[in-house]
Amino acid sequence: MDGNYELKYEAMRAQIAADISSGLKPHEPLPSERKLMATYGVSRMTVRRALALLVDDGLVYSRRGSGTYVADPAMISKSLSLTSFSEDVRERGMTPGARSQQVRRLPAEADVAADLALSPGAPVVHLERVRTADGLPLCIEEVWLPADLVPANFAEGAVTSLYDTLSDLGIEPEMASQTIRATVVNVEQATQLDVAPHSAAFSVSRTTYAANARPIERAHSLYRADRYDFTFSIHRGARS
Amino acid sequence: MDGNYELKYEAMRAQIAADISSGLKPHEPLPSERKLMATYGVSRMTVRRALALLVDDGLVYSRRGSGTYVADPAMISKSLSLTSFSEDVRERGMTPGARSQQVRRLPAEADVAADLALSPGAPVVHLERVRTADGLPLCIEEVWLPADLVPANFAEGAVTSLYDTLSDLGIEPEMASQTIRATVVNVEQATQLDVAPHSAAFSVSRTTYAANARPIERAHSLYRADRYDFTFSIHRGARS
Repeated sequence: MDGNYELKYEAMRAQIAADISSGLKPHEPLPSERKLMATYGVSRMTVRRALALLVDDGLVYSRRGSGTYVADPAMISKSLSLTSFSEDVRERGMTPGARSQQVRRLPAEADVAADLALSPGAPVVHLERVRTADGLPLCIEEVWLPADLVPANFAEGAVTSLYDTLSDLGIEPEMASQTIRATVVNVEQATQLDVAPHSAAFSVSRTTYAANARPIERAHSLYRADRYDFTFSIHRGARS
Repeated sequence: MDGNYELKYEAMRAQIAADISSGLKPHEPLPSERKLMATYGVSRMTVRRALALLVDDGLVYSRRGSGTYVADPAMISKSLSLTSFSEDVRERGMTPGARSQQVRRLPAEADVAADLALSPGAPVVHLERVRTADGLPLCIEEVWLPADLVPANFAEGAVTSLYDTLSDLGIEPEMASQTIRATVVNVEQATQLDVAPHSAAFSVSRTTYAANARPIERAHSLYRADRYDFTFSIHRGARS
């Protein structure tokens, strides 16, 4: 292998990153592999390595059979991976935050109790907040946790990443069943999300389970449609 | 095994189906397994077999760790399986249809060409129509196919199930990459879908591939949000 291999793909990565920040627009295609090989005088392997790094950087995305495109830094694409809001935001190089946070202990209503495998009226911790990325509101989040999962003073603490907090308690989310609906926001939600009333939004309901199949979280999130999409592959005959 | 086993679970299935059609409401919970065992005087195995059949019938759905609920016959839940509109509608016991169908041959624009791995301007077949279930409009569908995949007279024929038609030509969809967005319909789309203007909708873009990884279809569908949701499981660390 060429001794300059690593230098070459790092140089290429830096150059393309500079091109993006100095003017390439979101969803604009990058030149083809062949063109990049010619422009940079490098092998196909070097081109691919540089593009893979740029994908990891979140600066570009590739579409199978199509090519590589400039990523939209403002969009968060949800995949089939169970990730938290904080993780999604950090992956885009932004800082997650929460505001208007309310934490309460209350008796579980029937539907929440059923989802969390509790008796109706059993104590749950209810967390409601607006999630932000670099201060921009992206999502209204409501979470119910079985009260016996978390310490009694949980409701008093400041939580940013719930999954980090649960992890500190030895509770690791493993899988979730979720339903995604399309909706429009009402006036109050529009104010919280800083969008026009009646803007489109994703309404996502989720029940999350630990590895032992115990339900540990029921969540409802309202995501701004201008900042979120869901992108994943589906297969013939697959079942969810 | 009890010789009456099959009779018992079929009787139970029929009774619950009758209860549903005579008054149980969508999303209402069925009694617990234990209660059903007592009511019907049957074993847990019989209860589970009857409930599994009712799930297959599309009359109920089960939620892990929670219970079994009456299905909403008007809702179509999309999963991770690559299925066609016709298949989704038939599975709910309704008849798929199409209206306002327009089929044309035209030169591919740059974005369509890129997704279908064609040169810009290469001939594609463009199919646009409103999809119906028992006559009710559910979805506005736009599809582009590489023209060399289909016979020259394809544009003249009446297509209902595109996947059936492709299958007859020996072309089998294998996987697709798709992006789901939330949006609102404009006045023209609202008229086509028979909903109020500015109603919520899913906007789904999809590129579909055959087993040999050749792109065979690019599609865009606008689904009524009151008739569709997406329900599937996600896992920690999974990648799409």
